Amino acid sequence: MSSFFGRCFQIATWGESHGGGVGVVIDGCPPRIPVSEEHIQRELDRRRPGQSEIVTPRNEADRCEILSGVFEGLTLGSPIAILIRNKDARPSAYEEMATKYRPSHADYTYDAKYGIRNWQGGGRASARETIGRVAAAAIARQVLDSLLPGIEILAWVSTIRDLKADVDPETVTSGQIEENIVRTGDPSKVEEMVSLIKEARGEGNSLGGTIEAVVRGCPPGLGAPVFEKLEAELARAMMSLPATKGFEIGSGFAGTLLTGKEHNDHFYMDKDRVRTHTNRSGGIQGGISNGEPIVFRVAFKPTATIMSEQPTVSNTGSDTELKGRGRHDPCVLPRAVPMVEAMTTLVLCDHLLRQRAQCGLDSPDNQ
Amino acid sequence: MSSFFGRCFQIATWGESHGGGVGVVIDGCPPRIPVSEEHIQRELDRRRPGQSEIVTPRNEADRCEILSGVFEGLTLGSPIAILIRNKDARPSAYEEMATKYRPSHADYTYDAKYGIRNWQGGGRASARETIGRVAAAAIARQVLDSLLPGIEILAWVSTIRDLKADVDPETVTSGQIEENIVRTGDPSKVEEMVSLIKEARGEGNSLGGTIEAVVRGCPPGLGAPVFEKLEAELARAMMSLPATKGFEIGSGFAGTLLTGKEHNDHFYMDKDRVRTHTNRSGGIQGGISNGEPIVFRVAFKPTATIMSEQPTVSNTGSDTELKGRGRHDPCVLPRAVPMVEAMTTLVLCDHLLRQRAQCGLDSPDNQ
Amino acid sequence: MSSFFGRCFQIATWGESHGGGVGVVIDGCPPRIPVSEEHIQRELDRRRPGQSEIVTPRNEADRCEILSGVFEGLTLGSPIAILIRNKDARPSAYEEMATKYRPSHADYTYDAKYGIRNWQGGGRASARETIGRVAAAAIARQVLDSLLPGIEILAWVSTIRDLKADVDPETVTSGQIEENIVRTGDPSKVEEMVSLIKEARGEGNSLGGTIEAVVRGCPPGLGAPVFEKLEAELARAMMSLPATKGFEIGSGFAGTLLTGKEHNDHFYMDKDRVRTHTNRSGGIQGGISNGEPIVFRVAFKPTATIMSEQPTVSNTGSDTELKGRGRHDPCVLPRAVPMVEAMTTLVLCDHLLRQRAQCGLDSPDNQ
Amino acid sequence: MSSFFGRCFQIATWGESHGGGVGVVIDGCPPRIPVSEEHIQRELDRRRPGQSEIVTPRNEADRCEILSGVFEGLTLGSPIAILIRNKDARPSAYEEMATKYRPSHADYTYDAKYGIRNWQGGGRASARETIGRVAAAAIARQVLDSLLPGIEILAWVSTIRDLKADVDPETVTSGQIEENIVRTGDPSKVEEMVSLIKEARGEGNSLGGTIEAVVRGCPPGLGAPVFEKLEAELARAMMSLPATKGFEIGSGFAGTLLTGKEHNDHFYMDKDRVRTHTNRSGGIQGGISNGEPIVFRVAFKPTATIMSEQPTVSNTGSDTELKGRGRHDPCVLPRAVPMVEAMTTLVLCDHLLRQRAQCGLDSPDNQ
Repeated sequence: MSSFFGRCFQIATWGESHGGGVGVVIDGCPPRIPVSEEHIQRELDRRRPGQSEIVTPRNEADRCEILSGVFEGLTLGSPIAILIRNKDARPSAYEEMATKYRPSHADYTYDAKYGIRNWQGGGRASARETIGRVAAAAIARQVLDSLLPGIEILAWVSTIRDLKADVDPETVTSGQIEENIVRTGDPSKVEEMVSLIKEARGEGNSLGGTIEAVVRGCPPGLGAPVFEKLEAELARAMMSLPATKGFEIGSGFAGTLLTGKEHNDHFYMDKDRVRTHTNRSGGIQGGISNGEPIVFRVAFKPTATIMSEQPTVSNTGSDTELKGRGRHDPCVLPRAVPMVEAMTTLVLCDHLLRQRAQCGLDSPDNQ
Repeated sequence: MSSFFGRCFQIATWGESHGGGVGVVIDGCPPRIPVSEEHIQRELDRRRPGQSEIVTPRNEADRCEILSGVFEGLTLGSPIAILIRNKDARPSAYEEMATKYRPSHADYTYDAKYGIRNWQGGGRASARETIGRVAAAAIARQVLDSLLPGIEILAWVSTIRDLKADVDPETVTSGQIEENIVRTGDPSKVEEMVSLIKEARGEGNSLGGTIEAVVRGCPPGLGAPVFEKLEAELARAMMSLPATKGFEIGSGFAGTLLTGKEHNDHFYMDKDRVRTHTNRSGGIQGGISNGEPIVFRVAFKPTATIMSEQPTVSNTGSDTELKGRGRHDPCVLPRAVPMVEAMTTLVLCDHLLRQRAQCGLDSPDNQ
Repeated sequence: MSSFFGRCFQIATWGESHGGGVGVVIDGCPPRIPVSEEHIQRELDRRRPGQSEIVTPRNEADRCEILSGVFEGLTLGSPIAILIRNKDARPSAYEEMATKYRPSHADYTYDAKYGIRNWQGGGRASARETIGRVAAAAIARQVLDSLLPGIEILAWVSTIRDLKADVDPETVTSGQIEENIVRTGDPSKVEEMVSLIKEARGEGNSLGGTIEAVVRGCPPGLGAPVFEKLEAELARAMMSLPATKGFEIGSGFAGTLLTGKEHNDHFYMDKDRVRTHTNRSGGIQGGISNGEPIVFRVAFKPTATIMSEQPTVSNTGSDTELKGRGRHDPCVLPRAVPMVEAMTTLVLCDHLLRQRAQCGLDSPDNQ
Repeated sequence: MSSFFGRCFQIATWGESHGGGVGVVIDGCPPRIPVSEEHIQRELDRRRPGQSEIVTPRNEADRCEILSGVFEGLTLGSPIAILIRNKDARPSAYEEMATKYRPSHADYTYDAKYGIRNWQGGGRASARETIGRVAAAAIARQVLDSLLPGIEILAWVSTIRDLKADVDPETVTSGQIEENIVRTGDPSKVEEMVSLIKEARGEGNSLGGTIEAVVRGCPPGLGAPVFEKLEAELARAMMSLPATKGFEIGSGFAGTLLTGKEHNDHFYMDKDRVRTHTNRSGGIQGGISNGEPIVFRVAFKPTATIMSEQPTVSNTGSDTELKGRGRHDPCVLPRAVPMVEAMTTLVLCDHLLRQRAQCGLDSPDNQ
């Protein structure tokens, strides 16, 4: 049940890191939306391994094939199935993991839950699983373009360990982020960040950091009260990505240090539009977008796979040691940027269709 | 759709802060679980207004009535409906809010979404909405006691603004937390915290802070890969509570400052039980519990309602000013503690039943 | 989980026949829809006991109270909770049923499933459970009136045992149906049907029959392929009503006797509207409405409670006998008419909002 | 949204009759269940075209490929993706259908709903869509075998037009049904049924009929009250199959001709098992199985595609004529038998897991 996501724009992802492939089925997609394999491929290329010198060298072209739901370049309204074959799987690199649990990985918990595990790689816990999400989001993006033209969804690497980029969420552009292999929005920090990552890899070590994201041009009214608050859905979406340890929106944890007088966002009229002077709310109030940029941050832990011997246990219950093998990212953040954008896109697309279901899109504020 | 929660242990909450009342319907609850109004009332009393000198003086006894689903003290397996009447509503205090949007509240966004709003209070955005959750969780707690005896779920106030309690999640007790009106686990900070809150209230101001929570005695195997990772569900649950701005688990945002070598939790055998020396994973790996304590933190912003004049706009689009009225908590944290526990309980109970559905409860690790 | 219904217009019903009451929570309802207790009451009065000489004499006014979600006569978009108290419960009439299973009732199966049962009446298996559905449908009806003005949903008693009414689904009116206590659409059969029912009651016996229903003015395009075909959803909705044994749409079982040449509905242009000369499809093709009247029939078995001694078993596993007590309908059909209409209304309202979510309501055919 | 099915054992089917292929994703499947492509293939072969002289000659081997979720012959607990390529698609046969609506097909309603349609075949409305269901059911069957050994699910052709087979649901065997190409359970009618079908095909005509099904060995307690009554779920499942027009369970429509005294099923003790003398309830009471055989019937209309000229309209709104082309079954029933069994299996498997979630499988009656 856990690989199904969304209420109106629904997806079901599938696939292990080592096996026939990975993919996704999308249901509830509006009809007559332009979709092509090239378009999806563009997004997959942003998350694929081997794309630069600071990511895993696993050699996967990650070519996608649309199997259904698209006809003459347009969505049919029926389920869209997308398949990406695994090509460069090397199960032999994982043989030792058949019996030993990698620290801070999901090997042990999968065994504890299911009593079985595809040990030839990370299985469903591998970041490879996110391919289906990114493919689905490429289509969700087209839906947004059709129904909410002008909405922008951007993510960038905000920190690597303690090295912080200086980026303005209101003005950063996709070009600025994509023009460097770290995918930070601060050109002055690129070189240093690349060095940090290479240094860690050189030491058989790994690094974590934070990704910041912004949604610009989101109209007021998306989201919902109580359990499906927009920030709750975003939090769930982000914390469902591999290696995430935290989520905060607007003022976040730092906001707890302010008093109410300091923290409140005062409204004012900007011509006929309601705006706030500050944006500590992060673009969402009471679970519903208020028209200001939606700004949030996600914490990613350092990659669990490191190239040095670590104490662990075997699946038969004895203490042992294990050294990392296989091909891995010394720092997941550059490749996690498109994942964060993908999950944000999926949440917004789903909420947009929910909003159309309940309230219509010519809601009072849009008239 | 947004007031329905859970897949196997499902709840539907309802009610506005001012109106006939609030409540919840619970479906999918296992049969023959002992449940009583007294039992639910105990939890409601922990979150009700007027319980101490540092919370809102709104005078609500919040008496619950079980309307269905329980027979001779046991659950029937059919839906349990619980009703709590609103008694001390004072809509007159809100008259000005009929036309003016309170800063950092949901007044504007509800109008933007729905084109209508119950201005006689906070409507569904009021913390009063959480009564249904707390009532449902009191029953979920009984289910856990029946199927997972020994599991403990505790939350406490960890910080008020920059004042930090020193609490050990492995050993803190419910008694320590409940014996002070702040609900912190650190007796040495109680007096100072109470002073801080009173001072803020005296200035017509408000404070935020963080709540930390722990689940002890959770067996390995709860949770699921991908979209329903246990930490993702907890994040969503916490971020669905009013006034929350952030969620982190285990090492959280601070974990991004460590390298992989520093961050990894090494496994070892503790007799026949797999354990980890450190717990930076926060008790969850790959979305699934690993048997260590589940530890997480939630950021709450300072209460948006403050007793001083603030700039804002009217619902007809003109700039204006508004001064807070009504009865409000100068700091929501003491009353948010039972809410955090309630949402944790609901997530765990739902995941326990999902686990029973898919894998059975005599899973490999429990045999 | 089984008392939740709908994807976009969601309801959760609750309540046993004997206990605090029955009710419903509705979520996802569009905002600013006019709703009043009087309006809901009108529908409840059509299904309530004691309304005529041929139904159960149980004396329940079934007064509804709207507890939330409506403000100044309009829906808020947040959950609408409706409560109807049980007043005339007489658990003493059921004492014998505490230990004996009534034949063709749910007593045994509830015990087999849950290991517990509210024996003071039919519990959730009582037709009293449908009150929540009828109340919710009264609101769904308002949504349809707002978004699909002109749509008509009518049901009537088509047969009582072997006595068949002669009714034209294209022209029958609500007035014709409601002006007789049987709720058939054929005035010439009313007297005979009433006699049949009274005769059965006089003999301590009971009768079944069929209800036919029509939806007129449904636009083409509602419904969906595969699992949520409109006829599949209607079938599920009808078979979820107490005492139903069969569902057929359009030509139904009789259609199996025709050849393809005889059965096919030929299209023709009626001005600029696509229509069919015949309607063996029953208004639905490929799971999606085609603009013709949607016509279906539902079989209701004879009431299981009869006033004579029957062999049965006890809950401790011994053979015994039991004579029906309590107050019951000798024939459920007159009161089932509003239930069939209610479920039809709920299905259509939900599908209308799903259609708005996926395709918008200005779909190609409506432009 | 409409191609997702099930709550605990969830499936998502995809694929059009002409395109890359068809398939299914299964989530929530219990782990460590033996599954193989051979096993699935066996069921696919029962529904594939070209299997006998009375079905469509479309030449599809329908070879399945398991892409994920199975490791060393056992399910992993993660999503199982299955792909079946389309091989013998002949879109040219459909060129005329690009602009003309086939009578009693879904061409017009798909256009009305989506404003687009894959006219190179039946799209999602093709019976080819059911491949994914049959593949998923082959796995669900393995789950049942593991958790409910001994449960039998059989369907057979009960009538072709007015020719009725004489079959006893309590004793009919799979061997009897599979040994004839009609898949009826009555050997004495096979020849006549085959003749009827061939005759219809010879005339460019088509036939319908009914399929009967039985579940033997289902324990008491499966199903649920209200909206998820077992018969309601079965009705929905059957009416979601292409060409179905009716569903009835137990006494069905004929049951409306009996009085309560005649209709009631009296309980008796058969050693320590509760049974009923008659089975007009069809094995389900109050939505929950009672341990008797579950018996139901499904009406299938005559195939809509016939090889003669019929009046219809074009997609630009003019009257026209159309003659059937392509390769089609003159009577869908022989190939619908495995579809009915598949949907029954999916419903039961899902309800079994739901039952385990809520009540556990060592429920009172099983102890």
